[in-house]
Parts: sequence; structure tokens; C-alpha cells
Amino acid sequence: MAVSDKFYAIVAGVGPGTGRSAAIRFSEAYPVVLLARSPESYKDVVAEINKGGRKAIGITADATDEAALKAAFETIKKEIPGLKLAAAIYNIRPNSRPSRKPFLELTSEDLDVSLKGNIHGLFNFGQSVIPLLLESVEGSPHPPSLIVTGATASIRGSKLWSVIAAGKSGQRILAQSLAREFGPQGVHVAHAIIDGGIDVPDATYYPRNEGTPETKISPYAIAESYWFLHTQHKSAFSQEIDLRPFIEKF
Amino acid sequence: MAVSDKFYAIVAGVGPGTGRSAAIRFSEAYPVVLLARSPESYKDVVAEINKGGRKAIGITADATDEAALKAAFETIKKEIPGLKLAAAIYNIRPNSRPSRKPFLELTSEDLDVSLKGNIHGLFNFGQSVIPLLLESVEGSPHPPSLIVTGATASIRGSKLWSVIAAGKSGQRILAQSLAREFGPQGVHVAHAIIDGGIDVPDATYYPRNEGTPETKISPYAIAESYWFLHTQHKSAFSQEIDLRPFIEKF
Amino acid sequence: MAVSDKFYAIVAGVGPGTGRSAAIRFSEAYPVVLLARSPESYKDVVAEINKGGRKAIGITADATDEAALKAAFETIKKEIPGLKLAAAIYNIRPNSRPSRKPFLELTSEDLDVSLKGNIHGLFNFGQSVIPLLLESVEGSPHPPSLIVTGATASIRGSKLWSVIAAGKSGQRILAQSLAREFGPQGVHVAHAIIDGGIDVPDATYYPRNEGTPETKISPYAIAESYWFLHTQHKSAFSQEIDLRPFIEKF
Amino acid sequence: MAVSDKFYAIVAGVGPGTGRSAAIRFSEAYPVVLLARSPESYKDVVAEINKGGRKAIGITADATDEAALKAAFETIKKEIPGLKLAAAIYNIRPNSRPSRKPFLELTSEDLDVSLKGNIHGLFNFGQSVIPLLLESVEGSPHPPSLIVTGATASIRGSKLWSVIAAGKSGQRILAQSLAREFGPQGVHVAHAIIDGGIDVPDATYYPRNEGTPETKISPYAIAESYWFLHTQHKSAFSQEIDLRPFIEKF
Repeated sequence: MAVSDKFYAIVAGVGPGTGRSAAIRFSEAYPVVLLARSPESYKDVVAEINKGGRKAIGITADATDEAALKAAFETIKKEIPGLKLAAAIYNIRPNSRPSRKPFLELTSEDLDVSLKGNIHGLFNFGQSVIPLLLESVEGSPHPPSLIVTGATASIRGSKLWSVIAAGKSGQRILAQSLAREFGPQGVHVAHAIIDGGIDVPDATYYPRNEGTPETKISPYAIAESYWFLHTQHKSAFSQEIDLRPFIEKF
Repeated sequence: MAVSDKFYAIVAGVGPGTGRSAAIRFSEAYPVVLLARSPESYKDVVAEINKGGRKAIGITADATDEAALKAAFETIKKEIPGLKLAAAIYNIRPNSRPSRKPFLELTSEDLDVSLKGNIHGLFNFGQSVIPLLLESVEGSPHPPSLIVTGATASIRGSKLWSVIAAGKSGQRILAQSLAREFGPQGVHVAHAIIDGGIDVPDATYYPRNEGTPETKISPYAIAESYWFLHTQHKSAFSQEIDLRPFIEKF
Repeated sequence: MAVSDKFYAIVAGVGPGTGRSAAIRFSEAYPVVLLARSPESYKDVVAEINKGGRKAIGITADATDEAALKAAFETIKKEIPGLKLAAAIYNIRPNSRPSRKPFLELTSEDLDVSLKGNIHGLFNFGQSVIPLLLESVEGSPHPPSLIVTGATASIRGSKLWSVIAAGKSGQRILAQSLAREFGPQGVHVAHAIIDGGIDVPDATYYPRNEGTPETKISPYAIAESYWFLHTQHKSAFSQEIDLRPFIEKF
Repeated sequence: MAVSDKFYAIVAGVGPGTGRSAAIRFSEAYPVVLLARSPESYKDVVAEINKGGRKAIGITADATDEAALKAAFETIKKEIPGLKLAAAIYNIRPNSRPSRKPFLELTSEDLDVSLKGNIHGLFNFGQSVIPLLLESVEGSPHPPSLIVTGATASIRGSKLWSVIAAGKSGQRILAQSLAREFGPQGVHVAHAIIDGGIDVPDATYYPRNEGTPETKISPYAIAESYWFLHTQHKSAFSQEIDLRPFIEKF
């Protein structure tokens, strides 16, 4: 499949896991823009994609910051002029932060981090990308899509995950609202509940999955599911899918 | 039933609807503290309760403000010294604000209002009241309780309710986390999904329920359900109930 | 409170737990009819209620059998002529049967037992009691109610509970359908998710709750919640509540 | 892609919609067996697949009948000896039957039809195919899969759909139980909530979707999603997806 010269994809939140794999997968069809707060997070994968004869650009921006995000889209316009947006992935996961604590030990800063990354971030990102996706309804090779990375905490609160779950569940329902509003206008908004740890070298934060590598989710498998969501026919959109290792108890 | 001289109840968020009715209902058993941002919101019901021979005090405080809330609890210690907390109701509903708008017309201030009132507010309130409720596990006439007022938007996003739903769903899962953490320690955290408009004089914001008064929920009926939740035996706690008019489609 | 001389309540499925306690609780307000497959199941509680100066009658009938159920209501007409039905409780729990087995060891008879007790039974019972409850909308001291006893398996399948969960979840959604159809006509249909073992002498079937009695639900507490559901104002019906011991993980 | 000479797929419940399209899609990779109660339902699609140089066989059997289903699998052994089962689709939808009636007009036969087709049928089919799928864990080109066709009624009861919803929701939780039991053994059990009418010539039963063809789901799009589910990597199984037309309100 040739890489499109009319449409691009953007991935907000790139690290060694889902964001990287999604960028690689979508780069088979589109030039991809990678957003991360630090060039360290994207530079290797940008190089890897470009070396493979496909196209990627990295932009340093905090996607949860309204002004920074606007500036990023101005940069995109200059870097890949004339291209329209076909797919946007919101993959910012502020989960690894040390906010897995009993409720009475949490500070309001812990809460802020979760809400900013999960809800404000998707809000800002949505306000930037949805007008662009709407412009692509005619012409895009697949229905223009916004795909959001959720987690078990998106549907379930628990003892040590209170502020993370508050942020993830608010994010999930925001994505659902966007699906209900923009689906009928031709934009596909989907939410993926990633129920398990990602198989990346430093994945130490999710104790349930310690032990055998069998218990981790391949980020490439997540990327494949995101690509599938993007290519669904408009007569059969999925709003939500769950993804977990075969061995995971749920 | 005599009003307790050892335990009190607090209602955060008092207006003409649920907060007022809950304060009246709980005042049959406990002195009640009413919190609202403006004395206008509580002064009539405080007077009404005190005139009836029971006890109420009103405190002006923004419960979503950490410092203001701490100051409020200092005031409570002075006003009703020695009393312990048996029940706390979080009823702050920033819903009536004009944020029922298409997503692309919303500002990040609209989002802030929802998150502040729904999530930050419950977070702060929870951090203040849960240590007090834990101290009451021994001795309280009923299991010490934190009851949170939710809404349809707590479980469902929709076109015009995106930021409200983001806040309410985050709040709901925060309450669920608190239930899972503090239930085993004897504190009952319950969440009520109020699925309909409240029957108060100025209830004009919920168009589905325009028309006959039959379609509105009596705030006294909500208060009765909150009282029931508070008095549930510790062997049979409800974490969540829904409440809607018999005539409501759902 | 005097026992009504115009309205009665019926409990289908009486054993040592929820059914017995519900019958006792509702007998404070209404004459109660107890249905069970064997007189052994109800005779002691019928005697206990009648000895207390209230009124109970026991009828031997398999409520999952259409003809037997019709005959039972004929008997009721003769035994308590002129009384109208205010509350009906469907509490048949075929759960304790030895169908907690790996899927490939189950027989289709195991499935039949679950579907018959959970779905056919509620279907038949609903067809018998709903016309009677509709006749009571005018005049009943509280909104006429049908209350259904559910379980954790009503919302969740699992390895050893497949056929039980199939039956309970079908029952739950049937109850939800009835709530949506008959709520607007004034009949309150509610479903209670009992998430834990009941504290009865022979409660050995629920291994999670072995050990301390603290982990069991008091059937009296369940009965109190059923009474509360029955007495809810028609402007604030609950369709579903969960009930679990404070100490239960969920 | 060459058609496998080692593994086959089976589709139970073939009509003009999902079953036919799924058989066509899976025939690109596997010989397919089509089960239906009448040869009329499968003969055209069997001919179409075979004419295209791929392989299909049709078997007349009522998959909800235990003995008939066993006989069908004996026939399969003879017709395609040595082949192992890679994918099984349970697509029997007894929904179009005239059971969309107010509850009090339903007969227990209406209920039986729903439970038989939805729950007994999946139970029998599961008991037949799961042992075969377990044998294919080693060697199958994709994780051996059982995919179940659900509907809106699988998660929601309503006025006119009470018996259908009872059957579909029981079926859904049965599928979930199977996923929890057999996922860790390497078999992928997935449930698809088809939320809308299927675009087939005679699709008249779903009034919400009358009018423009835009409001119908393409059965080919459903088949594509089923194929995607079958090919998911074992580190990232989806247990449930929803599928609806972009224009559908939900």
C-alpha cells in the first residue's frame, strides 16, 4: 500500500509502547506526526519510520496545553502543507506517575495530573482535531477517526487507583460524547480499554502482570486494533473495544 | 426520634432542591451543617430547621476550594464542639451552568467548571470528611456515610453534555473507589444517579421534563432515599442506586 | 402500623433466608402469602407470623410452573377474598444446585434448571402478578411493586457460574423490561443485586464468604431494603440496587 | 491467501445477512461449513463460494437441538476428514419472530423460542465446538475463536423486547463466562453487539432503521469485524465490540 500524499495521521503521546507502535502501523498508509513532551520520546521512532522509506515528523509539545497544541498544528501546516487529517490517536497516559496511593495520602496535585492528562488533554486535542477530521469526511480513504487509549480504570474505580480512575472514566465518557455528536457527521470516535500491562522494556508499573511475558499486551497488537478501528466501514463503527492478554483474569 | 447530641451531619451544596430536603430529613436525627457558596442559598432552610426545634448551622464556603473547606471544618469544631460526623452529603451540582453546548463551542473554562465542581470538589470534601467518618465507626447510630449526588450524565455521555458528563462520570468512579477503599473500614460510600429533573420552582433546565409536574422528582423523595442509604445495615450496603420518576423513559 | 385489610403481599420462594425475612417484614403492613414448592419451606415462618398477631398463609406451588401458579392465585382469592395485591417478591433462587461446574461438565439439564427458575419463573410470576398490581395503582398505600432478587451473576459471567449467570442475567434484563413497560403505568419493578452470601444457618454454598460471619448479608437487612423499595415515592423509583457486606471486595 | 487445508470454520445460522457474509469472508482462508435449519438458507451461498474456487458445505441442522448438532459434527468429520476447527460463529437470531409484543400478550412459547435460540443454542454449540477449538490451540493460523452475534437487546431490556432481551442478555453473559473460562486456555470467545438493522433485502423488522439505506449495517462490514476478531493476537483479545451505523443514535 502506498503512503497517502493527501492525508496524514497524528499520534499524541508517544513512548516505547502503544504510541510508538501505532505511529509505525499508521505510517504504512499515512505520513505520521508524533507529539510528545520531549524529543527523547519520539526521535528514535521518527528516525526508524523515515529510514524505512515512509514519513514521520516529531513535534515537541504538551498536548494537554491548549496553546502548545495550537502551535503544534501551525507547525504541522508548514511541515506537511496541504495534507488533511485522516486519523488522530490520543494516547497520553499519565498513569505511571506515583499516584497509586491510598486516598488519604493523595494530594490535589496528584488529582490535577490525572485530570489534566486524561480529560483536559483529550478536550484540547479533540477541539483541535475534530474540525480537521470533519473536513476529511469527503475524500479520506477511511472514515476520519479519533481513537482514545483507555484502561481498566476507565470503567472501574479501586482502592489505589482513585485519581487515575477519576481521570480515565471522565475521559472515556468524554470520548463517548464525541462519538455521539460527531458519528452522525461521519467522524469515527472510538475508545479502547487496554486491560493489562504493555510489553515494553520498562513496564514495571503494573504489578498484576509481573512474571511471565505472556501476561503483557503486545503494543503492535494494540496498533493493529487501532488500525482496524480506523478502517471500519461507516455502516459498522465500534465505539468501544476491550483488549487484554488471553491469560488475563477479568 | 430525638436529635443526637453526639453526632452531626453535613450537606455540601444547598439550594432549593436536594440539598435543602436532605438537610431537613437528616435534621430529624442530627444537627446539620449546611455549606453553600452564598448565605442566600442556605439561610431560609437553616431558619426553617431551627424554628422547628431542631438544629442547623449554615457556613459560607466553596466546598471545591481546599482552603475554604478546611476553614469550614474549623468553624464547625467551634460551633458544635465535641460532635462527631455521622453523615456527609456531597450535592454540589454545577450542572445548571450554560455548558450544554456543542463540543466545538465549549471553552476550557466550561470544562474547568464541571471538573472543579464534580471531581476536585468531591476529592477535597472526601479528604476532609473521611477521616472524620472513620472516627465515627464506633458509636455512630448508623454506619457513617458519604453520599454523592450523581446524574444521568454520570453513566452516559451525549452530544450537549460532554463536559458535564466528563465531570459526573469521573466523580462517580471516584465515589466508587472510595467505597471500595473505605467500605471494609466501616464507612458507607454511596452514589445516587438522579435520572430526571428535580421538582423545584425554578427547574427549567431539563427540557425532557417540561410539561407536567408528574415528570419531576420530589427532592423529599431523594432525601428519603439518602436517609435510607445512611441507615442501611453494614451487612448490606448499597453502593449505587438510581432514582427516576415513574414516568421517565430510560 | 396496622396491618392492611385491603391489600396483601406475596413472596415467591421462601427458605431460611431472604424469602422468610421479607415475609416477616412485609407482614408488618400486609397479610402475606408465601409460596414454596414444599410446606417444609414456609410452615415455620407462617406459624411465626400468625403467632405474632399478623397474618400469613402458605401455599405449596412451584412458581415456575404456569398451571401451578394459576391455581395458587385461585387459592389466594378464596383464602383472602377481596384483598388486592400491593407487593410481589420474586425470590426463587435455584443457585444452590450443583451446577457450579466447568462448562464442559455441565448438562443441558443444569441449564434448564437455571433458566426455568430464573427466567421462566419470573415470566410466569410477572404475567400473574402484574395485572393484579396494575389494579392496585389506585388505592395502594405505596406504589404496587414487583421486586426481584438478583445476584452477582446477574451482571457477570464467570468460569464456574456459566449457566447460573445465563439465567440470572436474563432474569435481570426481563425485570428491566418490565420496569420500562409498567413504570409509566404506576407499577414499580425493582431488581436487587445481592452480592454476597446470606447469613443463614446452612449457608455453605458460597466459599468466598466462609469464615467470619461478618462477611454474610443479614437477610433482615435485605428485607429492609425491599421494604424501602416498595415504599419509594413514585417520583423517585429505583430500578436497581446492589447490596453487599461492608467487607466484601467488589 | 491460500485456503487452509488443515483448518475449517463453521457458521451456525445462515440467512441473507451476517451468516452469509461471514461464511464468504472466512472462506477466503478456510473451508467453511454452513449450518441452517433449511437448505434454502444456505444453498445459494454454498454454491457461490464453491463456484469462486473456494470450499463450502452446507448441513441442514437445527443448531439448538443437541442431537441434531452432534449428528452435524459427525457429518463434518466424514465430509472434510482430518480438518481441525479454527473458527466458529454463532449467529442464530430468533429475533425476527413475532415476539415484539407487550409483556401481557406474550405466551410462554414466545419466551421458549428466544431462550432456545439464544441460550440453549449457544450452550449446545459451545459444548460441541469448544473441545474442537481447544485441540486447535497448537497449530491454528490464528487463535481458535468462537464469535457470538449479539444485539442491542443483549444489554438492554425494553417494553416490546422483553423476551428477546431475556434471551440475548443470557446469551451474552454465557459468552462472557466462556471467554473467562477458555481464554486462558487459548480460545478466543468474543461477543459482538450489533446495534442496528442489517442491510438485507427483507430487513423490515427493525422500524428504527426504516427509511434511508444509510441507516443499515452492511453485513460485509460485520463479517470484516468478525474476521478481525478471529485474527487478533493472543496478547490482545477483545471480549466485546459494538457495531452500529455511523448515523445511529445510541
